[in-house]
Formats: sequence, C-alpha cells, structure tokens
Amino acid sequence: MQTIRVATPSARYEVFAGSGLLSTLAPRIRRAAGKLPRRVFVLTSPEIWALWGKTFLTSFNEPPIVLFQRAGERYKNMASVEKLLRQMIAAGGDRGSLLIVLGGGIVGDVGGFVAAIFMRGIPFVQVPTTFLAQVDSSVGGKTGVNLPEGKNLVGSFHQPLAVFADIAPLGTLPDRELRAGLMESVKAGIIRDRALVRFMEERASEILGRDPKALEKVIAASIRMKAGVVSRDERESGLRMILNFGHTVGHAIESTTRYKLLLHGEAVGWGMIAALFLARERGTISSLQFERLERLVHLYGPLPPLRLRTAKLVAATGADKKNMGGVRRFVLPVGIGDAGVVEDVTPAELDAAVNYMLACAREPRA
Amino acid sequence: MQTIRVATPSARYEVFAGSGLLSTLAPRIRRAAGKLPRRVFVLTSPEIWALWGKTFLTSFNEPPIVLFQRAGERYKNMASVEKLLRQMIAAGGDRGSLLIVLGGGIVGDVGGFVAAIFMRGIPFVQVPTTFLAQVDSSVGGKTGVNLPEGKNLVGSFHQPLAVFADIAPLGTLPDRELRAGLMESVKAGIIRDRALVRFMEERASEILGRDPKALEKVIAASIRMKAGVVSRDERESGLRMILNFGHTVGHAIESTTRYKLLLHGEAVGWGMIAALFLARERGTISSLQFERLERLVHLYGPLPPLRLRTAKLVAATGADKKNMGGVRRFVLPVGIGDAGVVEDVTPAELDAAVNYMLACAREPRA
Repeated sequence: MQTIRVATPSARYEVFAGSGLLSTLAPRIRRAAGKLPRRVFVLTSPEIWALWGKTFLTSFNEPPIVLFQRAGERYKNMASVEKLLRQMIAAGGDRGSLLIVLGGGIVGDVGGFVAAIFMRGIPFVQVPTTFLAQVDSSVGGKTGVNLPEGKNLVGSFHQPLAVFADIAPLGTLPDRELRAGLMESVKAGIIRDRALVRFMEERASEILGRDPKALEKVIAASIRMKAGVVSRDERESGLRMILNFGHTVGHAIESTTRYKLLLHGEAVGWGMIAALFLARERGTISSLQFERLERLVHLYGPLPPLRLRTAKLVAATGADKKNMGGVRRFVLPVGIGDAGVVEDVTPAELDAAVNYMLACAREPRA
Repeated sequence: MQTIRVATPSARYEVFAGSGLLSTLAPRIRRAAGKLPRRVFVLTSPEIWALWGKTFLTSFNEPPIVLFQRAGERYKNMASVEKLLRQMIAAGGDRGSLLIVLGGGIVGDVGGFVAAIFMRGIPFVQVPTTFLAQVDSSVGGKTGVNLPEGKNLVGSFHQPLAVFADIAPLGTLPDRELRAGLMESVKAGIIRDRALVRFMEERASEILGRDPKALEKVIAASIRMKAGVVSRDERESGLRMILNFGHTVGHAIESTTRYKLLLHGEAVGWGMIAALFLARERGTISSLQFERLERLVHLYGPLPPLRLRTAKLVAATGADKKNMGGVRRFVLPVGIGDAGVVEDVTPAELDAAVNYMLACAREPRA
C-alpha cells in the first residue's frame, strides 16, 4: 500500500492506494476522523453495492445508512442532490454526520457536493472504485453536478477527510473503462512525471493485464502528481490548470458528441494528440518527443474513431469553463514531465492541431 | 460612515455602514474587487428593485444584469437556486463573474449560496436593505436555503467580498420589521457589548424614530460584535455559538408556529426572555440584571402574544440544527456583555424557563 499526503490551505488528508482497503475501512476511517460519528452514511450506486457491498460492510460493527445514486451523467443533477439531502435529514443526519462515497466519478462528484452543502458542510470520505475516479476525481476536492446547460457548472471545493483507492474493484472494470482511465495517468506522466511515462511505456502489458503491483504503482504515481499540484493550488488559480492538458479539445469533443460517443478519458486522449501537435509546432517538444508521446497515448487505446468537422470542434473549444473573459487557454507540454499554460494560441494554430487530430481519428490505429 | 473589518481564515473584507452608499456602489465595489469583471449580476427582489433600483444604477456605467428572487421563506429553496444558476449561464456568466445581492435576508441567503456554488464559487457583494440583514445575515458568510424538512438545512460558508449597509432603505421598512430586527442588536449587546445595551436603553426613541445617526451607531456596533465573533470562529465550532443566544427557544417557537405567526426577531425576543430566566436561575446574571435586560427586550417590542403548550415547545427545542449528537446546547448571558455555552440544561430547568416565557407571552406588555 502507498500513502500520499495532500495539504491544501483548507485541509490536510491522506490518500491510500493498494489492495485490501475495502474490507478494512471502518478502523481506517476511525483513525482519519478521530472517531466514527453517530450517523454514518454511505452513498453508492446499485451496481457497485451489488458487487462490493458485502466486502464494504465486513469491517463495520454498525452498518452505515445506505443511500443510492445512479451512475450516469444524466443523474448527476440538482434533483439528485436535493433528493439525497432530504433522505439524510429523514434518516436523522446532523452536522456531525459523516458521508462515505463508494463508487465511480459521478457518485463521487454528487456525494462530495452533498457533503459540501448538507447543513453547510459535513466531512466525507472517498472510496473510488473506478480507475478514473481513483487517479483523478477523488483527489483534489472538486465536487459538483451538471446543469442542463453543461457539465459541472455547479459545485464546491470540499476536500475529503481521506481517500481509499482499493485495487480489487478494478478487477470488475470493463476493459474500455480501464484504458480510458489510464489516459489520465498518461497525462500525469507527460505534464509532471518522466518516470511514469517510462514505466507506462515499458510495462504496458502488465498494466493492461491488471497486475495489482503494476496498477498500484501507476495509481499511486498519478495521485502523487495530482496531490502535489492541488496542494500548491487548491482553487485552480494557476498551477492546477496544467491538469487540463488534453482537456480543452477533449471537452470540445465531448460536448460536440453530446457525451455519448466517447468516454471522458478517450476524449482527453484525442485532446492530448491535438495538444501534442500544437506543442511540436511551437517547439516546446521535439519531433522525437512528439512521436514518443503520441505512441504512448495509442498504446493505451484504441481511441474510438471520430467523424467531426474541424470548424465545429474549434468553435466548441470557446465554450470551455476554464476560459475566463473569453481567453482561450491551452496547456502545452514542455519536454517530457513538464508543462505550461499559454493564452495566445491563434485560430490558425488551433485549426492545424485539430485538423491533424481529426485526420488521425478518421482512421484510428488498431 | 463606519468601516468594520472582518478577517476569517478564508477571507478578509470590510463592512461599510452609513448613508449614501447605495448611490455610490460601483466605485466602492471596484475598489473592493480590484476591478469590475465583464459580467456583473445583481440579484434582488421585485419590491426592493421597484423602490431602490434607480438609486442603485446611478453609479454604474454599464448596468449589471438583473436577476430576481422573490422574498418569502417559501421561495428560499433549491428550485430557486437552480433557476438562478441557469439564468446566469444563459446570460454568459463565467468564473470571473461577480454577483451583487441587493435585498433582505432571504435574497442574501439565496444569492450568497448561488455565488458559493456557481462554477464552484464566484465572488459576491452584500447590499442588505433590511435592518435584520444588515446586522445579522449579511455578515459572516452563512448562505443557504430551506428544504421541505426545515430551514437552512442546505448551504455553504462563503464570505462576501464586501458588505454595504445603507441607512436609507430602512426608511421604507415597516415598523414591525425594524423592531424585530432590533432584537438582534439587543442580543449583540447582551452577549458582547455593555455599551450597546446602555445606548439602546437611553436612546430608544431616537432609534425607533429612525434617526440616521442613532441607527448607524446601533448597526455598526451590532456588526462589529458579529464581525469579531466570526473572525475568531468562522465555522461555528466554538465561540460563534454564542450568536445563538435566544435562538434555541426562538427556533422552537418558529417551527412550532410554522414560521407564520412571528418574525424571526420576535421569536428570538421571546427566546431571549426564556434564556434570561434560565440564566437568573443558574445565577449567571443577577435578579437586577434580569429585570434590566427583560425590560430592554420589551422596550423594542411589542412581542406578539403566544398561546403554546410548554411540552410542545420544549420538545421542539430538541430538533435544533446546533444540537449535534442529541446534546441540547444553550447560550446563557454571564452578567451584561458576556455569554457562555452550557450543555447540561436539565428538562426541569428548560420547562421552568419556557413556562415563565409562555406566561409572559400570554398577556404581553403593550
């Protein structure tokens, strides 16, 4: 097991990554919280609870009150939040209650937001069960839901009391989801961790074969990268923006395809291809580095084919939430293991990068 | 004009109390914010906008986008919040937008919460227009809405960028609302400010006659008291609880009468009578102090009559949000100008205090 410390201005907590965490949660949470409060809730999805509920309960003397949130972007909304808040009141929840969130990114985002606003904030614990949630959404305190107008438009920064990333649930994850999740680790390596890039190049077969030790290593390195960035910039005023590498075009792909065609990680994968192209054109990475990193992205593919028009996709990048006051921000890698934010990307540069990416995406590699 | 500084772990800001603020807001907000962002929103109630919209707009070169929230507890809900969030997206709001909240406590609570969760938090400015909002809800960062199960069960701590409390709108406030609001100033004096108690005893006719200088003095002293407490305990873990003097029984009166019979300040007025009785029985105030403070509460009455059963009211005190883990907390004055929290109030003591209060409330003084 590996332990990663997060220290932001608003909170300090530990992230644990390894095997056997799910069956030993109660004493671990008690250690993180001081003691277990009178009312403990667990929010999960029906699917995850069916698979892992029994394991989860083994370490609790008194079983927590179980609440359900359906997985799926369309259930990540204000109506679900209000329903959960009311269920917690009805079950006797108070300011001293604790919420454990057991599930993927959507359950985590909704649960974290509920914890952030229930009686103006109660502590919560993240127990992410998907690769993506483990390496990305469960760490950093971003919580929230969608509005009909767009994703994650409502939310809070609310740091968990602790995060427990157990390898076991990854065993039941569909292969496509694992590969999509690994794109965030590819991102982590490119922007911040040269050694992770090499490890993912050399040990791809073990990682994709779900070897627990190899997975633990990738997960811990990815979390360590994110924890370091978040600790230095909790509220995304500066450094934290580099976590959006691949996300400007990635989000544009997701919104243009209405979140139906690709998983988030897959869209980020294509977004990274576009950003890598832009970085090569600008000379922040060499042609050799470009080829190496492009190969790495595809190693964790296949990325699904895309048939989109450049103009439409370029237009969609303007709607990104990170664009304050209309400025089009871009994260570009600088060599391997470093990155920076640029704000002066010209329409021609963006066109060329998106064009290249869409040309690859029309006939993707096997 | 008086300026009061608030400094919490999460924010530092200034509260301005005086005349002529409403017509000079734009430059003042620009000073507090650094500069005015591209999108400025103002949230207000139709009634307040009809009375004060024109004055408000005089100092703005570019008029802010106006959003409306109806005053009234029944509109202080999650549906209003979602509607406002969507209106802000539709009007081009982004992470850099600013929200000005112009109105009473309900508009302020809803607006502050909207600012807290819109894109995970944007800055906001409070321009409270009622006495109660000026001395209480606009300072301290508590924001939120009701659930069908109870008041203020959802919300955030989100500190404003600045607060502007203008005396002018108090001129159009109904007399009953002013008197109810003044109960919070009576509270402020009793728990923390001996000089304010004396001022309110000696200058009641000027204060109730809305003399601007007298009002400014009471408002500034009340805000100063709250700012001092909030600065030392932002999230109500300790000291901030003393602000709940009169509120344990006050909230019970409100919920028992379904928030229909009394204004909040009036319920707090009766709640203070009960708490003063309890304090005298325990000897934390003398009989003379009890009489003096009871007289002060009634000086800013009349408090409406109540016909309730002791047992029902006592039972309702158990449902208070401040009662973590079932403990019944009580704030008791210690002499005049100080207060403490006790957790060992016996059922018999509570019965006696509520009995006394209800006996007074059956035939209230004129």
